[in-house]
Amino acid sequence: MKTLQDYIDKLNALNFKEMYENDFFLTWEKTDDELEAVWILADALRYMREHNISTKVFESGLGISLFRDNSTRTRFSFASACNLLGLEVQDLDEQKSQIAHGETVRETANMISFMADVIGIRDDMYIGKGNAYMHDVAAAVSQGHKDGILEQKPTLVNLQCDIDHPTQCMADAAHIMRELGGIKNLKGKKIAMTWAYSPSYGKPLSVPQGVIGLMTRLGMNVVLAHPEGYEVMPEVLDVAAKNAQKSGGSFSVTHNMADAFKDADVVYPKSWAPYAAMEIRTRLYGDGNQAGIDTLEKELLAQNADHTDWCCTESLMETTKDGKALYLHCLPADINGVSCSEGEVEASVFDRYRDSLYKEASYKPYVIAAMIMLAKFANPGETLKALEERAVPRKMK
Amino acid sequence: MKTLQDYIDKLNALNFKEMYENDFFLTWEKTDDELEAVWILADALRYMREHNISTKVFESGLGISLFRDNSTRTRFSFASACNLLGLEVQDLDEQKSQIAHGETVRETANMISFMADVIGIRDDMYIGKGNAYMHDVAAAVSQGHKDGILEQKPTLVNLQCDIDHPTQCMADAAHIMRELGGIKNLKGKKIAMTWAYSPSYGKPLSVPQGVIGLMTRLGMNVVLAHPEGYEVMPEVLDVAAKNAQKSGGSFSVTHNMADAFKDADVVYPKSWAPYAAMEIRTRLYGDGNQAGIDTLEKELLAQNADHTDWCCTESLMETTKDGKALYLHCLPADINGVSCSEGEVEASVFDRYRDSLYKEASYKPYVIAAMIMLAKFANPGETLKALEERAVPRKMK
Amino acid sequence: MKTLQDYIDKLNALNFKEMYENDFFLTWEKTDDELEAVWILADALRYMREHNISTKVFESGLGISLFRDNSTRTRFSFASACNLLGLEVQDLDEQKSQIAHGETVRETANMISFMADVIGIRDDMYIGKGNAYMHDVAAAVSQGHKDGILEQKPTLVNLQCDIDHPTQCMADAAHIMRELGGIKNLKGKKIAMTWAYSPSYGKPLSVPQGVIGLMTRLGMNVVLAHPEGYEVMPEVLDVAAKNAQKSGGSFSVTHNMADAFKDADVVYPKSWAPYAAMEIRTRLYGDGNQAGIDTLEKELLAQNADHTDWCCTESLMETTKDGKALYLHCLPADINGVSCSEGEVEASVFDRYRDSLYKEASYKPYVIAAMIMLAKFANPGETLKALEERAVPRKMK
Repeated sequence: MKTLQDYIDKLNALNFKEMYENDFFLTWEKTDDELEAVWILADALRYMREHNISTKVFESGLGISLFRDNSTRTRFSFASACNLLGLEVQDLDEQKSQIAHGETVRETANMISFMADVIGIRDDMYIGKGNAYMHDVAAAVSQGHKDGILEQKPTLVNLQCDIDHPTQCMADAAHIMRELGGIKNLKGKKIAMTWAYSPSYGKPLSVPQGVIGLMTRLGMNVVLAHPEGYEVMPEVLDVAAKNAQKSGGSFSVTHNMADAFKDADVVYPKSWAPYAAMEIRTRLYGDGNQAGIDTLEKELLAQNADHTDWCCTESLMETTKDGKALYLHCLPADINGVSCSEGEVEASVFDRYRDSLYKEASYKPYVIAAMIMLAKFANPGETLKALEERAVPRKMK
Repeated sequence: MKTLQDYIDKLNALNFKEMYENDFFLTWEKTDDELEAVWILADALRYMREHNISTKVFESGLGISLFRDNSTRTRFSFASACNLLGLEVQDLDEQKSQIAHGETVRETANMISFMADVIGIRDDMYIGKGNAYMHDVAAAVSQGHKDGILEQKPTLVNLQCDIDHPTQCMADAAHIMRELGGIKNLKGKKIAMTWAYSPSYGKPLSVPQGVIGLMTRLGMNVVLAHPEGYEVMPEVLDVAAKNAQKSGGSFSVTHNMADAFKDADVVYPKSWAPYAAMEIRTRLYGDGNQAGIDTLEKELLAQNADHTDWCCTESLMETTKDGKALYLHCLPADINGVSCSEGEVEASVFDRYRDSLYKEASYKPYVIAAMIMLAKFANPGETLKALEERAVPRKMK
Repeated sequence: MKTLQDYIDKLNALNFKEMYENDFFLTWEKTDDELEAVWILADALRYMREHNISTKVFESGLGISLFRDNSTRTRFSFASACNLLGLEVQDLDEQKSQIAHGETVRETANMISFMADVIGIRDDMYIGKGNAYMHDVAAAVSQGHKDGILEQKPTLVNLQCDIDHPTQCMADAAHIMRELGGIKNLKGKKIAMTWAYSPSYGKPLSVPQGVIGLMTRLGMNVVLAHPEGYEVMPEVLDVAAKNAQKSGGSFSVTHNMADAFKDADVVYPKSWAPYAAMEIRTRLYGDGNQAGIDTLEKELLAQNADHTDWCCTESLMETTKDGKALYLHCLPADINGVSCSEGEVEASVFDRYRDSLYKEASYKPYVIAAMIMLAKFANPGETLKALEERAVPRKMK
């Protein structure tokens, strides 16, 4: 693409009107057109920033972030996205807040949203809870807007829940498209989403689930590989299977890492915790059963230790398509001899793909900004045009 | 009101020139005209935001917040107000700051204020301290400005002290005016500021004190009700009595909740700690007497438990004017069966007024923004006019 | 100077082209022209703010701060500088971040910098580490920019390392110039950078080192005074000696505070820890040797206690030039009878210079803003001109 108008034309050819005044929870709740609109708008925003055209569509307004888990990449991606559009980030730090015992989500959500245009939430720790909490927040502010309490409805952006990690997976997909030459080229390509060993435990399932839920949309042959006992949520397996059938791709599960890597165009080796164990842990936390949690942790670490051979090695990489599969990771990775003695990937593999991995991450701020714009602007193509005509430089000369 | 000019005309008819380059500590230190200016300007700013007219009067500048107590509502209200005017919030987190042992307030206040246009402080925990601290800060930066150290004098906004909670009470009053049909309609209306039971203890006195100190200005018949032993600061009782005499309203104290509710147009049932106990607690904290504090806490909880019948029930609500008094709360409330087993209000009462309560809270960002503008702009009417003519949208189309 | 053009003309006469797309680590890595450019641009930015001309050169962009030590003054100075130029501060709080064990600096630095224009770091606690860490970060983002990962290279500003505190010392120098009548007047003036007693221990060496490394550039007669055993880094002594030789000033070390104060035009009495002890402490921390650290602390406090007579007294001040030397401090100072019983300075001396000290501190935000602009704008003179012509007020009328 050469001009902003090219992006606008592509955008205008799509139907995404349901995204306006709406939220972004899971990629599989969105139509193909809607996902494509996110990618195109993300590219358009990047094009504009690269050409020093300000995309500040808000003169004032807050972007509220709530991180119930530590975060660097997503925190800075969300902050960057808000700033790019003109929103000021205000973090809801639950430890510094006067959120009363028993205070309803409905109340807190409305109280912080009088001037909020977006709420971004990460809540990925407990199975069955994170996504549900986000829906509670979104329902509360939608109701508040309808009832005349909030002048505007803040859009909710899922910054990682127990089910999906849509901003990550949409960025991953954007990167694959760029590397493989466009969305059309993804059809028939093989992607291996495989478990890998990590000396830590309890990593969220949202990335593997998000990847199989999204890449099956794009006509890819998606293979999910993991040792027995490391199953993901069955609902998401169903989603992946149905998606593959509809898109003309395929979806299969294997317990053999080598099979998954064989002739793969893209590999995504990454550790995660077994779904069943996470369900148990969620209950133990609910019961405040610390002894149970400690026991579970020991069991899970012992279980992990049986599978140290699930590592993305040079020999495995050689078995991929022309020995040159695109290696993906959401970062940080557990790198052999760097961040741990044995981990998810050999250092020489990681090093070779470092630039590529960093570029993969670079899509996230733009993906988030696109999600916000599609929810807040009825006609983003016109808005882009107006921004180009306004021609305010992001940075003066 | 229909046009911005209506607000400007109303504003221009008032005398508030003493607010310029000044601070906002207690409502009773302000004239009637000055309070009315806050309400009108707050409404004007809301009108402009609803009509998508940017009110960004600052291109740069900091709004400094210092919260010596947890806060969600006020924190986000202050952040929203600053953002609405173009100021970036910078929180002074005393735990992350290098404030030396024995460092003077004068020094810290100047060091953070080189580019600050407003300082908002919450310091409500210790009787005799919070308001005094705010005066120290305001005096320090005023002196700094006079001495040529600070190019501008940051205005101090009291976000809750030991005596008053002016941004809350001004928002409460704005809500009452809207619900009762304007400031003129408040004359002769009865408002019951009553204590209510809570299973926690030590809630600040600033809300009841602020309410009786403000509503008596408006010609209302203000009844303060609490069990014996839950007295508020005697100075504020004097303020309320004098205000009532001057405004043609009335002020009385009762130990009977039912009397207070009888035929009331507005009710504000809310827990607070006895003033005398808070004075003792302040001394115990000063002495570092933890055993004394623990004993006091037990005594206060036991004392509270004698008054679980002080609850805003449906039956009490029925005794109010037409059974339809406006129910107020600064939130979060202790709701029976929701946030506690027995508390300040029955769930069905709270539910019926939920939207109204949230709207009450929605005035706070605008009230704070108005206080800032009145302190920083010599002729806010002209500034509003200039903003309307500039016609920059808050959010692009 | 009377008009902005005067500043621009002065700026345009200097050669600072190597600062563009570069970083600011140590003052002695910069040419005389480059340092002068910082001072002139800082003055120009202050002039513009005083004349209510917005200097918002960025419409969007992040200013990232990383404080590995508590900070109030520098934190607010950095926030003010970023805000003045249009950048939004985003703090990297390593405690809330998901920075994996063993995660490389290269990775973290790139992950937070997709939309960052500046990174400000304070890392002053461990000898041999802070400055090295800053170089690692700067190298990582430079590489990221070259590799096409980052659209822009964020400039690194040293907000205090183990070697130098350039934003402080540049502000100190700006203050001296203003008080002594310009940079030309510094030649031949005597400045005493002397150790002073403090009841705490382990204060960074970066201020005394920064002062002797910078003031010797300006043709001043710089005397470093401290008790035996309180030596600073030998490399910096070399820097100071060479600077003095080149500038026609002088540099000497004495163990006699009175000698240093005698006829001094400027005095800077301030506590610091012995370099050798800090080296030992750095190793003990590296080894996790808490017992060793505790022992060292006791030894250092005992060593300090032998030198309580190193205090900036009224009698010492009388021996300075006309009894009126300019008294400097980076603040907060240990003031006798205020923040401690015995400390760095007598209260009456401190009080007499209070306004002057606060003005000294007021240069820091402008110095930081100038460092950022010189790194991000190829022709800052033209940018200033464009800002003047744009004539957007910082604060509306």
